[in-house]
Amino acid sequence: MTSKKRMAPPGAYNKEPAMTQPSFQDYYPDALAHCYGCGRLNEHGHQIKSYWDGDESVCHFLPKPYHIAIPGYVYGGLLASLIDCHGTGTAAAAMYKSIKEQDPNAEPNTRTLTASLHVDYLKPTPLGVELEVRGKVKENKGRKVVIEEWILADGIVTVRGEVVAVQVPESLVEELLKRR
Amino acid sequence: MTSKKRMAPPGAYNKEPAMTQPSFQDYYPDALAHCYGCGRLNEHGHQIKSYWDGDESVCHFLPKPYHIAIPGYVYGGLLASLIDCHGTGTAAAAMYKSIKEQDPNAEPNTRTLTASLHVDYLKPTPLGVELEVRGKVKENKGRKVVIEEWILADGIVTVRGEVVAVQVPESLVEELLKRR
Repeated sequence: MTSKKRMAPPGAYNKEPAMTQPSFQDYYPDALAHCYGCGRLNEHGHQIKSYWDGDESVCHFLPKPYHIAIPGYVYGGLLASLIDCHGTGTAAAAMYKSIKEQDPNAEPNTRTLTASLHVDYLKPTPLGVELEVRGKVKENKGRKVVIEEWILADGIVTVRGEVVAVQVPESLVEELLKRR
Repeated sequence: MTSKKRMAPPGAYNKEPAMTQPSFQDYYPDALAHCYGCGRLNEHGHQIKSYWDGDESVCHFLPKPYHIAIPGYVYGGLLASLIDCHGTGTAAAAMYKSIKEQDPNAEPNTRTLTASLHVDYLKPTPLGVELEVRGKVKENKGRKVVIEEWILADGIVTVRGEVVAVQVPESLVEELLKRR
C-alpha cells in the first residue's frame, strides 16, 4: 500500500496515483479472494484494485460497453458495486493501518464485509471514460469502519456513497465456508 | 401487470406469483430498455422481471455461480442491483397505477431513475437458490416514489433495501441520448 503525497486537491480527478505497490485486494487471503467485485481469483468479476493516495483511497475502473442504465450512461448497480468493494477494501486497509501502529509486524490479512451501503446518484455518469472512485475513512472503531466515497467521471462527481464495513472474524469465515 | 390476490402473508416465500402477464419491464419503451439490470434489450444483463403480487411487487432471480462475495454466498453488489432495478420497476408501475386511476386510457410508458439506494445486509445470502425480491410502495408523491424492499433466500430475509426513484422526464431522456 502506498502513502504517496497527494497530487491533486480532494476530490479532483487524478489519473495517475502510484500503483506500483500491491493493491488492497492483493492482500486478501486466497479463501476470501473470489468476490465478483474485487476478488483477484474471480475470472468473471470486475477485479477492482484500490490504493492509498494520501489520506484518501483511489480506484480506477472502465465500465464495459454493456454496463449501461440507458445508452451512453453507466448502470447504477455497477456504480453501487464499485462503492461497495472499494469501500470494504478501504476499510480493510484502514484497519490494517491501525493494527500496524500497535504492532509493526502485523500481517495485512484483514477482510471486511458490508453491513450497509448507501448511494446517492447526483447526475448521470457518462460511459466511455475511466471512472475514479475515491474513499475516505469517516469512522474507525474496533470491528466497524465507515467509509465515505465519491465517483468522478471526467473530473465531475456524479455519485456519492457510504459503506459501513465490519471485520470478518476468521471463525465466521471458516463456519460459512464449511456450511455451504 | 397482474393484480392477483395475495397467495402468502407479507414477506413470505412465494415461488409462484402469476407471471402470465407482461412484467413491469416489458412496458419500458425500447429507447429505455437497455439497462444492464432490467433491460429486456441488454443481452449481457440480468433482464430481471417484476410483477404485482397483491399490494407488493415480486421478482425472482437465480444468481450465476460466479456472483459470489465468498464461495457459496451471493455478492452484495448483485443484491444491490436487484434492489435497485426491482425498486425502479415497482416505482414505475406504482406511478402508472396512480395515473391510470385518473385516466383509464393512460399508457404504461413511465420510466424512473434511481436518486438514492440504501441496502442493509442482514445475513449472508446463500448461493444456489432462487432469490425472491419483494417491494412495497412507501411513498408516492408526484415524480418521486419511495420503495421499500427485501430479499429472501429459502424463505429467510437476508437483505433489506430502499430506493428513492424519480420519474424521468421525456425531455431529459431525449437530451441525454442526443448528448452521448
